[in-house]
Amino acid sequence: MGRFIELISHEEAIGRIRSINWKLPGTELIAPDQSAGRIASADVTAKNDVPSWNRSLVDGYAVRSSDCAGASETNPVVFQINGIVEAGSSTYEGFAEGQCTVIYTGGVLPEDYDAVVMAEDAELTGTAVKVFNHLKPWENVERKGDDLRAGSNILKKSEFVRPWHISAMLSAGVNSLQVFEKLKIGVIATGNELFEGSEGFIPNTTQKIYVDYLNRKFMNAEAAGIAHDRVEEIRNLIDKSLENYHCVIVTGGTSLGGKDEVPEAMSGMGNVVFAGSMLRPGRTLTLYEVHGKPVFSVSGIPVPSLLSLDVYFEEYLRRITGLETYRQKVTGILDSPVTNRAGYTTIFRVKYTANTGGGAVEIVKTKGTGSLGSVLNSNGTLEVHGDVEGYPSGSTVVVKLFGDAL
Amino acid sequence: MGRFIELISHEEAIGRIRSINWKLPGTELIAPDQSAGRIASADVTAKNDVPSWNRSLVDGYAVRSSDCAGASETNPVVFQINGIVEAGSSTYEGFAEGQCTVIYTGGVLPEDYDAVVMAEDAELTGTAVKVFNHLKPWENVERKGDDLRAGSNILKKSEFVRPWHISAMLSAGVNSLQVFEKLKIGVIATGNELFEGSEGFIPNTTQKIYVDYLNRKFMNAEAAGIAHDRVEEIRNLIDKSLENYHCVIVTGGTSLGGKDEVPEAMSGMGNVVFAGSMLRPGRTLTLYEVHGKPVFSVSGIPVPSLLSLDVYFEEYLRRITGLETYRQKVTGILDSPVTNRAGYTTIFRVKYTANTGGGAVEIVKTKGTGSLGSVLNSNGTLEVHGDVEGYPSGSTVVVKLFGDAL
Repeated sequence: MGRFIELISHEEAIGRIRSINWKLPGTELIAPDQSAGRIASADVTAKNDVPSWNRSLVDGYAVRSSDCAGASETNPVVFQINGIVEAGSSTYEGFAEGQCTVIYTGGVLPEDYDAVVMAEDAELTGTAVKVFNHLKPWENVERKGDDLRAGSNILKKSEFVRPWHISAMLSAGVNSLQVFEKLKIGVIATGNELFEGSEGFIPNTTQKIYVDYLNRKFMNAEAAGIAHDRVEEIRNLIDKSLENYHCVIVTGGTSLGGKDEVPEAMSGMGNVVFAGSMLRPGRTLTLYEVHGKPVFSVSGIPVPSLLSLDVYFEEYLRRITGLETYRQKVTGILDSPVTNRAGYTTIFRVKYTANTGGGAVEIVKTKGTGSLGSVLNSNGTLEVHGDVEGYPSGSTVVVKLFGDAL
Repeated sequence: MGRFIELISHEEAIGRIRSINWKLPGTELIAPDQSAGRIASADVTAKNDVPSWNRSLVDGYAVRSSDCAGASETNPVVFQINGIVEAGSSTYEGFAEGQCTVIYTGGVLPEDYDAVVMAEDAELTGTAVKVFNHLKPWENVERKGDDLRAGSNILKKSEFVRPWHISAMLSAGVNSLQVFEKLKIGVIATGNELFEGSEGFIPNTTQKIYVDYLNRKFMNAEAAGIAHDRVEEIRNLIDKSLENYHCVIVTGGTSLGGKDEVPEAMSGMGNVVFAGSMLRPGRTLTLYEVHGKPVFSVSGIPVPSLLSLDVYFEEYLRRITGLETYRQKVTGILDSPVTNRAGYTTIFRVKYTANTGGGAVEIVKTKGTGSLGSVLNSNGTLEVHGDVEGYPSGSTVVVKLFGDAL
């Protein structure tokens, strides 16, 4: 069996990830309607005002507000209708004193007017309209640029593109935007036990869980093969994957002081960023760097290995895209005390529930390898860092949700 | 212009949605690895124990715990190695007194043993292993079924399938599960102003925002055409869409007491569930039912119409699938007071931020139609219901996030 390994702290591991000049993903120029869920690689600003003209917020009558100055219930002002303006069409031809124009919600307010009387505040008889109240300038009108001003920010670099960003871009005359190319992630599984007919055969669930978890609109994760616990076989798969992917994840084939296939396969191939860290679960997680690309070597146990990978992978993603996080952070109140092991950063599985008394954070107990059973009842994680001994019950803590995308 | 409409309360509108016998979506039997993001239409239980055997949690030596009863630093017990068990392979052939077996993490524990000594707690010299401490039965062993017991619940009906559910199903011998078929949603846009060259032309952003927002792994939303503000054209598109989709959404062509193309197009086609409700934004949202299928008629203003649609659509989805929500609820503390209009349910746009002092809920101000600008800075909504006058600053409230999927 191998020798003991001196583990670095989680904070040191994060620091090392930050210090590497990772190969940056390329960027591409795409149309707004193709950009849902992508990460902006540059700020996007409005090209024109939204709306591009003054428009009516209600159905009613376009007037000059000054014409209604003296109007009251007992002394209405009377106008004659000179046309109809709808969203998309207009019969308005020009203004003369004493006139108003029928206007529907969304209709472009003719330049002669500066206000709209709501239909229910007026009385229509034939083509005569009685107005009973005075109006402020621009009452019931959305003015040009009220929603978005030309030059104002729609998207910041490193933000996800959401449906409203797309609408805002289309409305504001933005025809293209720059996004990061989709990150391609190859997931390699290793283990003799993954091959049917082997002693103690187990289904290849770890690879599957990684692919499903990492497959998002801004990145593509793929199964990149299964290898036996043989150094050459593993090395070949990693080699090939480094050509095809931005990032490679290898599950299995490593343990503390145990089997060493992955370390052997990787030897001479690049740099060890760190070999294990004081993270629980995840003590054996090892990160290599090959020509600026990361190779994450994780244990073969599906859930704990994924939870630990997520912490370091997210830091890598942050370095190369500026993305703050792809997991929603929420604050809640711990339902029970948690205890940390000195020096370690511990990832607890939690169940967060929103309720009117405050968000509740329930620690979900793990047993055995804490593999699958525990996570079925969880919807997020709590990280307790190395310098914290623990939290008493009732503490307010920040947890990261797994997300509704999953 | 049309006549005034007596609006029902939001609660009454929700009640009416609940009272309808909506046509239920079909179900289909699919393989676990095809089920990511789908909604389970039946409970799923484990077919076999996970793990399916006792397995080692560490690298070390399989022993009978009773053999180590007297072991201590000064009085170690010595064993002779009789084979090696790895995950996926084994050279173990049988046990004799005084023997132990090398075992690696994940290896199947031979039936003769009931514990594993960690490698670092023993001393290896040639094929002799010195053990210095006694062990509890099953120490460092994950027992058959410890993670998931055969017959235990993996997924409940109406839950989303997440990556770990898939791994759990694959591990527990579940080869297929029942899910709701993907809900097909057709989004029709109406409005003369959406046609290029029209007076006050505006890009067709509302349809796009609906399609992007509603496109999720468990449902497909599609653009189902654009119609001019002409009753026949709208009626034809709706007619056709009702054949192709489970649910139809029509944007534009309706306003309070205003233009009536959609109501006219729908007249005689089905039942009015409600025509407007005391929801802000969303007063004009009208819901029809045609042979058990919903037709939502919403305003053409992208964001406010989507926020109101979301509330009623979610209730419809809940009725037909049992899904509680597709938006994460979180609890936070209001940074400023909110005031509701008597009888109305108001949807405020909010920005939720997790911090160690508690979740903060900032009310995002809207102006004009509150269309796009306001939502760019929001990540969720707060619904203040008709029976609530408002909340003072500092109140603890539950908000619904837009979700990281978007």
